[in-house]
Amino acid sequence: MLNMGKKPLILITNDDGITAPGIRTLIEVMLEIGEVVVVAPDSPQSGMGHAITINDTLFCDPVTIDPTATHKEYSCSGTPADCVKLANQQILERKPDICVSGINHGSNSSINVIYSGTMSAAVEAGVEGIPAIGFSLLDYSLNANFEPCKKFIKVITQQVLQNGLPKGIVLNVNIPKLKASEIKGTKVCRQAKANWEEDFDKRTNPMGRDYYWLSGEFVNYDKGTDTDEWALANGYVSIVPVQFDLTAHHFIQDLNSWDL
Amino acid sequence: MLNMGKKPLILITNDDGITAPGIRTLIEVMLEIGEVVVVAPDSPQSGMGHAITINDTLFCDPVTIDPTATHKEYSCSGTPADCVKLANQQILERKPDICVSGINHGSNSSINVIYSGTMSAAVEAGVEGIPAIGFSLLDYSLNANFEPCKKFIKVITQQVLQNGLPKGIVLNVNIPKLKASEIKGTKVCRQAKANWEEDFDKRTNPMGRDYYWLSGEFVNYDKGTDTDEWALANGYVSIVPVQFDLTAHHFIQDLNSWDL
Repeated sequence: MLNMGKKPLILITNDDGITAPGIRTLIEVMLEIGEVVVVAPDSPQSGMGHAITINDTLFCDPVTIDPTATHKEYSCSGTPADCVKLANQQILERKPDICVSGINHGSNSSINVIYSGTMSAAVEAGVEGIPAIGFSLLDYSLNANFEPCKKFIKVITQQVLQNGLPKGIVLNVNIPKLKASEIKGTKVCRQAKANWEEDFDKRTNPMGRDYYWLSGEFVNYDKGTDTDEWALANGYVSIVPVQFDLTAHHFIQDLNSWDL
Repeated sequence: MLNMGKKPLILITNDDGITAPGIRTLIEVMLEIGEVVVVAPDSPQSGMGHAITINDTLFCDPVTIDPTATHKEYSCSGTPADCVKLANQQILERKPDICVSGINHGSNSSINVIYSGTMSAAVEAGVEGIPAIGFSLLDYSLNANFEPCKKFIKVITQQVLQNGLPKGIVLNVNIPKLKASEIKGTKVCRQAKANWEEDFDKRTNPMGRDYYWLSGEFVNYDKGTDTDEWALANGYVSIVPVQFDLTAHHFIQDLNSWDL
């Protein structure tokens, strides 16, 4: 829990790259709450999942994106998870009080959590014992309107600073693409059971070699009203507590009855 | 469940690349069980987590690694998760009966599951409704001895084909680096609570710019005897059922009491 006499140290990262409008909005909100350090990828890292860079070198240099800013920013050649590792081990003088990631340009609800660089940064912070939140807006556009996100991001971050998070849990927050007046509030949810139905776009390059673009359609087959998909479709900000103990504990007993 | 009159269709992939000794051993074992199709990365993809390729094109071409082989193999420019998606949507004529990934050169026990390309391929198959297993040997060496793995891989795969796996669950199998005679058997386990303590190696390049190599030490602070780390340290093959619903269901009630 936070010592309220002291400004919290906030580590900010994302997966859309350090110059993306989403992280700029997140920085703006966090500067109202505490001391900010930004360590974010130098280029977009969407879909990087929990990738880390083990077969290549990493660069990480101080940068000035906003000349009027007084906080420090670092641009890193690695993935979102690399940024969190580097920040903690090489850049920050002490363990941050919280790590926030985003605001992602696009949804990280439901199964998207496993593909998400935004969430992998939050999970990496969680693994290292730092309370963490990933924020995403359901708008892929570079010109998305992040204004309606601000008040929710501020309240949720303050609540995490005040209450702490249990070891092993981080938060996945998704915000619907609606006007501020249309958002009904927040809902604590479970991850909807849904997946992507791939539809690769097969093409032939000028040299005659076939290649593919990954595309597909998101299909939600979960009818529950306690899911993130339901909340978002019904005008709520979804908050899913996410764990990184992936053990399917409920299946251990069955598996023990197998002839292994 | 499998129709026993018919040979099962087995999709094989990995993260060390299509020519790695580990996948060659896995193919050998699977050819004893069913019809094999290999779709694997054209280069090593270790540490890629659940990365997918959305901002670049993908190549995927038939290749002949072993001229005496009668099964089909495809080399793909993408990540392990891309390989599974491409195999299912573009290459295989029907849904495979099982997807096996590995044998990874090195451990994917405990928290390593979230960084693992081997396991992300298995998870991706699971998301798409295909029973799946990731296999790893606790030996990073390219010349690792995969012989002792064979009988365990065969039995576990046959058991999955026979019993099926519940929707939403895949298996993470790790094999200790021991002689066949020293391995005591298999143990169904939970993922140990452990993490990496990073220790970046900071260097300066010939142009005077600082860069880093990610390194670190794996620290297991979980004293349980029901964990994968315990099993592996005590001479057992560990089998962890892994789920991709990341919701921390047990924390939803607490979170609902927050002032959000």
